[in-house]
Amino acid sequence: PDGAMFDVVVVGAGLSGLSAAELLLRRDARLRVLVLEGKGRVGGRTLTQELPAANGPDLWDLGGQWVGSSQTHVMNLIEELGIEVYPQYTEGKKVHHMGGPAAKVRTYTGSIPSFSPLVLLDFSLFLWKINRLSKSVSVEDPLSSPNALLYDSMTLASFVEKNIWTRELKEELGLCTRAVFGMEPSQMSFLYFLMYSAAAGGVMRLLETSSGSAQEFKIKGGAQHLSERLAERVGRECVRLGSPVTAIWQVTVQSGERGGVTEREALLPNVSWLLLAPISPPQIHTVSLSSAAKLHYQPALPAGRQRLMQCMPVGHMLKFIITYPTAFWREKGFSGEIVARPSKDCPLSATFDATTPKGNAALVGFIAGVQACDWSVKKKEERRDAVVSSLVKYLGPEASAYIQYVEKDWSEEEYNGGCPVNVMVPGMLTFYHPSLRSPCGRVYWAGTETATQWCGYMSGAIQSGQRAALQVLARLSPDCLSQEDRDAAQALENRHKKPASSTGSCCFRAGLALMVLAVGADKSKSSHKWVIILIVVTVTEQD
Amino acid sequence: PDGAMFDVVVVGAGLSGLSAAELLLRRDARLRVLVLEGKGRVGGRTLTQELPAANGPDLWDLGGQWVGSSQTHVMNLIEELGIEVYPQYTEGKKVHHMGGPAAKVRTYTGSIPSFSPLVLLDFSLFLWKINRLSKSVSVEDPLSSPNALLYDSMTLASFVEKNIWTRELKEELGLCTRAVFGMEPSQMSFLYFLMYSAAAGGVMRLLETSSGSAQEFKIKGGAQHLSERLAERVGRECVRLGSPVTAIWQVTVQSGERGGVTEREALLPNVSWLLLAPISPPQIHTVSLSSAAKLHYQPALPAGRQRLMQCMPVGHMLKFIITYPTAFWREKGFSGEIVARPSKDCPLSATFDATTPKGNAALVGFIAGVQACDWSVKKKEERRDAVVSSLVKYLGPEASAYIQYVEKDWSEEEYNGGCPVNVMVPGMLTFYHPSLRSPCGRVYWAGTETATQWCGYMSGAIQSGQRAALQVLARLSPDCLSQEDRDAAQALENRHKKPASSTGSCCFRAGLALMVLAVGADKSKSSHKWVIILIVVTVTEQD
Repeated sequence: PDGAMFDVVVVGAGLSGLSAAELLLRRDARLRVLVLEGKGRVGGRTLTQELPAANGPDLWDLGGQWVGSSQTHVMNLIEELGIEVYPQYTEGKKVHHMGGPAAKVRTYTGSIPSFSPLVLLDFSLFLWKINRLSKSVSVEDPLSSPNALLYDSMTLASFVEKNIWTRELKEELGLCTRAVFGMEPSQMSFLYFLMYSAAAGGVMRLLETSSGSAQEFKIKGGAQHLSERLAERVGRECVRLGSPVTAIWQVTVQSGERGGVTEREALLPNVSWLLLAPISPPQIHTVSLSSAAKLHYQPALPAGRQRLMQCMPVGHMLKFIITYPTAFWREKGFSGEIVARPSKDCPLSATFDATTPKGNAALVGFIAGVQACDWSVKKKEERRDAVVSSLVKYLGPEASAYIQYVEKDWSEEEYNGGCPVNVMVPGMLTFYHPSLRSPCGRVYWAGTETATQWCGYMSGAIQSGQRAALQVLARLSPDCLSQEDRDAAQALENRHKKPASSTGSCCFRAGLALMVLAVGADKSKSSHKWVIILIVVTVTEQD
Repeated sequence: PDGAMFDVVVVGAGLSGLSAAELLLRRDARLRVLVLEGKGRVGGRTLTQELPAANGPDLWDLGGQWVGSSQTHVMNLIEELGIEVYPQYTEGKKVHHMGGPAAKVRTYTGSIPSFSPLVLLDFSLFLWKINRLSKSVSVEDPLSSPNALLYDSMTLASFVEKNIWTRELKEELGLCTRAVFGMEPSQMSFLYFLMYSAAAGGVMRLLETSSGSAQEFKIKGGAQHLSERLAERVGRECVRLGSPVTAIWQVTVQSGERGGVTEREALLPNVSWLLLAPISPPQIHTVSLSSAAKLHYQPALPAGRQRLMQCMPVGHMLKFIITYPTAFWREKGFSGEIVARPSKDCPLSATFDATTPKGNAALVGFIAGVQACDWSVKKKEERRDAVVSSLVKYLGPEASAYIQYVEKDWSEEEYNGGCPVNVMVPGMLTFYHPSLRSPCGRVYWAGTETATQWCGYMSGAIQSGQRAALQVLARLSPDCLSQEDRDAAQALENRHKKPASSTGSCCFRAGLALMVLAVGADKSKSSHKWVIILIVVTVTEQD
């Protein structure tokens, strides 16, 4: 592999990277595609784990898990792979405990908690406003939306402060952003929130388990399985695990006479530098924003892109699975769904039934946003005990007789640093949005953060990977694309063209293949660190 | 140096790092202090450059340049070093061009532009509100301030939207934040803005040239000279330039019997890792926030600190100096001060007279915030021509006959990535403020962003370095401190103690010296990359 030539190098073997690689090869089997992944596994922010359960070991998701029928890209993939989904269990009473530890624990059925008439009115009006605004937002070009600059200059919290009158509903909205983003309403741009809702087809879809919504189905065998199957399609030999990419160079060889300087000569002056390339995350050619910021780029990325990557905070979320001998809550008429406000005693913000198709009873829950901030510094045992005692409080004493409690703090996951998604703070869309999907030289960006449909979800990851693959194919193998695909890729290129470019007179003409060098300095863990060098011969023509 | 032992390693030879090193040695001359700096020069965000001028070459500042009599820490240093300051020239008419290219260019004298009575009323009320709020904010503990959570959940833009009625004043405020922070009002937390103003003693001090304000004096010979003189005091042999620190390890040696494991043994298992430490910025033991985020820490820093560092965007600012045969603007009754709104034709947001004590005429100007975003991607020549034509428009045709135009885009500066300061977006203070000055094991944080007086300024840099030095001295050489200093350091430790700690049962007792290893992998540019390893022997005692 060292010194071997590839046409396309995909950085990151999550859903977007593998979808990109798979589509590249499906459209043009001649392409030499290499996928480099820093972790020892595929799947990115999906992670399926075997746990002891009532009927023996079974599989649960510690990362992304839900899909919905409106999530075209992931549902198509699931169908293509012949994988099955099953609905989220929602029968029975839901527990709703807001207003602090002293407040009454309430239960309800249906999709809306049993609010008082005043809160219900507040809720209806707020929802109507948000939906109307979210429909007016263009996901592709959010700055073209009405009041874009105003909405991007305020946080979601500021909008809420102005447009929600009841304390109860404000609290409820905090809970929702915590569960959806792993963040508080104060931490994101209101325009970004509208765009994110618009990309899902409406704000309620982010929250609900109903048809078309984000929590409609789960994947039999777990969500990570999608990536494993994609990796098989790409070819396991083309997916290198434990291979973090540390730097991306696009070396421009100035050459009046084509080929006057060989590639090797162009590289040598910098080779000693390789040994000191950063150890940090991967990502290029279909790159997720969550970790691209720590890479070293040469030449430096445009200032806008750098600033975009440096300030898109990722959510803070711990997910836990707790398995039980029986789904005792179902027997008692509970659905297993609990929502609760942050408190000193209660770390969880939401739980759901997580019983598997094999009938192994379990609950899944989330410790998110401000709660994750407070609780992640405590010992695991302390968190577990607090979770269990909250479950006892809400579902009954049977909750203490669990089989296994397992949790995943995504803020500790290398190359992610958080979950589920990187969001934008105020001002980011205003100043840096054009660079979100704009290729930088030969580097194309993917990752669910760059999706236009179901941004932040597995479906968005797939869409973004496929979009990046089409962009690359339009350049490398235009003959393999349908006219429709070519038009779509062309439209993307045009949309992303900046009015002014910092690359100045450099013109990328020669279609030289990408070259990959393995840096062999650290073989100790049988892993390679990769520096990707894209050789671009600039043919300078004199008039 | 390789393998040599030091008591304290300071990362970064800017004003805060050098102030820390200088104070450490002043209080305890026995300490072995090493300062590591990634750049080939000292001075951080100060940079003094020689330019051709009317009476031969002279010195100008392309980075931080102003000081004020209320900036105790920098004024004390200036006095100690026997350096002179001279006042910012402010005589004559100031040019004020807001409202877009078609608006009338106005001039005024004094400190407040000639607003209409309505705008003046709006301005007075707004200023009264801001000053009242800023006085109520505790810089040390901003979350204890009234309405802290509300103000940290909104941007400065949201507060302005609600509290300023006139378009003119909104525009003016945009200009002010652009000039002060290199950012737009939409990009920062309102509470952060209040805290920043409070640290300066009031919001007008950030803007004015009057006595005690931020733009009162300039430093003869340039601001970088302060760092050069400090470096001499520390000893040039103890300040290593071109030595970026790439990682910070705090190796904990578990040892029941003291000394059961030798240091070398503790290190060896990880040595191969050194070669792949990230190339990115320096910073520890008095570290500036602007670049600490890209370092690799082992063990990982607490989640709060990580998140704080990952999302404190730095301002975007280009500074230019343009030298002239004569200060023609003075002769025409202008002060040289221009403020202008962003436009397609005008890149500059503010200029000031920059004539030196030797009488070499010059203007200094700033392209900042949204203007920097738009103009930094253009060619230097295009920017220069637009600057010159703006100066011609505002000051007369003589402006085109300049001697030299030089500019510095701080977003391209390695280890800074921007200027003048890293600010906080909404929510950061709410969730992560406790980690701003909290030591992590043996790593102490400095940098102007951590200052409590004149945060963001040279004076704050010095204060923060001295504060970190006192914290370290309280640990290493308590006998060298006065009771007052010891009390101050103790108060800091107590304030920063978190209620819960993720380090669990680890206790740092043994005062083992810090060890520094040079990684000799890249000697090509006669530079070393450093990985700092702090060996901490944990003596586990059994009861």
